[in-house]
Amino acid sequence: MDVGGFLLALIAIFVSAKLFGVLAERIGQPAVLGELLGGAVVGVSGLRLVDAHDPAIYLLAQLGIILLLFLVGMDSELDKLLNVGVAAVLVAVVGVAITFGGGFALGHFLGYDNIVSVFLGGALSATSVGISARVLSDLGHLRDREAQIILGAAVVDDLIGVVLLTLIGRIAHGDDLTPAGVVWMTIVSFGFVILAIAIGSWLAPALVRLIERIKMARGLLFASLVFAFVLAYLAQRVGSAIIIGSFAAGLVLARTEKVREIERQVHDVAHFFVPIFFVSVGAAIDVRSFTPQILLTGFGLAAIAAGGKFVAGFAATGRDLRRAVIGVGMIPRGEVSLIFAQIGLTTGLLTEGLYSAVALMVMVTCLVTPLLLRALLSQHAPAEPQMKRDLVVDAPMDD
Amino acid sequence: MDVGGFLLALIAIFVSAKLFGVLAERIGQPAVLGELLGGAVVGVSGLRLVDAHDPAIYLLAQLGIILLLFLVGMDSELDKLLNVGVAAVLVAVVGVAITFGGGFALGHFLGYDNIVSVFLGGALSATSVGISARVLSDLGHLRDREAQIILGAAVVDDLIGVVLLTLIGRIAHGDDLTPAGVVWMTIVSFGFVILAIAIGSWLAPALVRLIERIKMARGLLFASLVFAFVLAYLAQRVGSAIIIGSFAAGLVLARTEKVREIERQVHDVAHFFVPIFFVSVGAAIDVRSFTPQILLTGFGLAAIAAGGKFVAGFAATGRDLRRAVIGVGMIPRGEVSLIFAQIGLTTGLLTEGLYSAVALMVMVTCLVTPLLLRALLSQHAPAEPQMKRDLVVDAPMDD
Repeated sequence: MDVGGFLLALIAIFVSAKLFGVLAERIGQPAVLGELLGGAVVGVSGLRLVDAHDPAIYLLAQLGIILLLFLVGMDSELDKLLNVGVAAVLVAVVGVAITFGGGFALGHFLGYDNIVSVFLGGALSATSVGISARVLSDLGHLRDREAQIILGAAVVDDLIGVVLLTLIGRIAHGDDLTPAGVVWMTIVSFGFVILAIAIGSWLAPALVRLIERIKMARGLLFASLVFAFVLAYLAQRVGSAIIIGSFAAGLVLARTEKVREIERQVHDVAHFFVPIFFVSVGAAIDVRSFTPQILLTGFGLAAIAAGGKFVAGFAATGRDLRRAVIGVGMIPRGEVSLIFAQIGLTTGLLTEGLYSAVALMVMVTCLVTPLLLRALLSQHAPAEPQMKRDLVVDAPMDD
Repeated sequence: MDVGGFLLALIAIFVSAKLFGVLAERIGQPAVLGELLGGAVVGVSGLRLVDAHDPAIYLLAQLGIILLLFLVGMDSELDKLLNVGVAAVLVAVVGVAITFGGGFALGHFLGYDNIVSVFLGGALSATSVGISARVLSDLGHLRDREAQIILGAAVVDDLIGVVLLTLIGRIAHGDDLTPAGVVWMTIVSFGFVILAIAIGSWLAPALVRLIERIKMARGLLFASLVFAFVLAYLAQRVGSAIIIGSFAAGLVLARTEKVREIERQVHDVAHFFVPIFFVSVGAAIDVRSFTPQILLTGFGLAAIAAGGKFVAGFAATGRDLRRAVIGVGMIPRGEVSLIFAQIGLTTGLLTEGLYSAVALMVMVTCLVTPLLLRALLSQHAPAEPQMKRDLVVDAPMDD
């Protein structure tokens, strides 16, 4: 892509994100719903101005989701997250079990063999936390206990998803799996988060003090970005997920005294990148690939995906929880599902049709979540209204 | 490039930019000199963490220079620029004439034929305004009259450079050139800037008022970015240069009442992208290609490039001008020179050796300018110290 095409794509992304974002808010919906639909308008099914698979757009979108989870981490509290830890693990494990089983059963019902059914099950199992985090943030509910359970469960979910992905990838390539290998992979994946938070919490205050001492233009911003990028990079290298790395970085920095200042400065940069992610998700929707049979399979997958996670919400332990909110918050699927489908496609196990059905499932879950969450949460005032600080969509500053 | 490699490149860019930027400032040099040297350390000649030719890094670097020129435009005043218009045009025309002639003569002296000599002349002729603008901004001299002449002359220079580039490109491809075609190309190139500023000045206030009325998160920021990207895109489409488009967008917005607010918000985003440009320039330096003969040719080209522009500074009309500052400010060469060399290389007219010599010339001019400008300007206090607002490197906010 040349600079001209790149600029045109950015123009289309920002115009559609803001235009449809404002329209969504006018009809009482979260801005992110508008960004997803705006993406569909400028993407492959519409004006074809944004190619979500272009390397540069893809990498900028990844920066968007990395920065979003970094901000979400900074706005979370490790203690709170640990307090809801049992509930989060239960929601995650039950959700993965139901949706994996459901996808596997649907595969068999449609006449596919074991391995294809395993792929379908895997594609249904991992929640993509971006959409829910954004909706909860848009609506000022990110610090509710339900939101913390959703975040915690999504992290556990992602960790399980990554382990599953690696296992299924190896099965697809015909590799042998030893039980010891599976256990080791699980330890590495979960151990990374624990180690990153432990070592990070020990290093971060010293790092912040060091940066303070060096008089450097925006030193704190760049040190924080580098910290988040390093953890994201390490997470990927050890076989975990990049967004888990940046979320852990946010959690760690949340405990330093400069967190509000860091948050504000990262926020200024994130504004640019976050819409690129959500518009890209919408832009990747290819409606021309949806034959009646794919529509049926896709909606079937979406029903299992949504129903399974909704039910899992009720596995949460704790008093006075709005468990329906938790269940709905776990519905969105994203990158991990698409990566499952992509590996299935490239190894020849999934047909183009099944790939499109998974993509449709991702699209449906992403679009219904903002609508459902909005409807559920409008019945309640924010739990801590004085804490309301939208992470991504803040109030206009110019009036 | 995968996300991991991309994150690693960004980490290397930010760490080297900040580390060497701070070191440069400690020894009294502009931060940009440190960023260039830091780029050399992490680039192809050093740690090889940053590949300046990677599409994603290249496009992010282009966003950096687009945003920098957008900010420079917002910090300029059209009236002031028009006041020094005659001086700027004289500096540009004299500078292009001397350096083009010098490069052409050197080509013949080295035994090359007319067409190769024309390429060398073209590669020497166009000033790259980014480095000087950044140094002047780092040192708080961007609003000096000399700085305005440098900016104006660099814009005229770039316009001449783009026309030359198109002409020489066509010669290289064996196309016929009609005098009418040359005239038309020149009219389009210069006409674009005039039209963009005229129509933009008429549209921008209404646009700003419209955005104010719609309550949109960061509406002003996104509207301004889209405005700058649209002008940059159009500039490229009509055959001008992208940075001329974003500079014109800045000039236009400078005349709206919200310019300070826009500048602050664009600034927050530019912080992220601008270092990517300067580190990329440094990262592209490939010292292994420098044989003794290339070193000799490269330094010869650099001497003509620097000497010619320095002399051209004295063509500026006006009273009490520090003409040496103008001359030195015109020294840096950049993208346009490299594009000349690139076209020469791909059409088989320039050898790899001559291409490397042009790259060396670009590097030398970029490295000496901050040193020379700093030395010249330290003899004077800023002309308008109360106006000192660094565009890119602002004071640490955390103390």
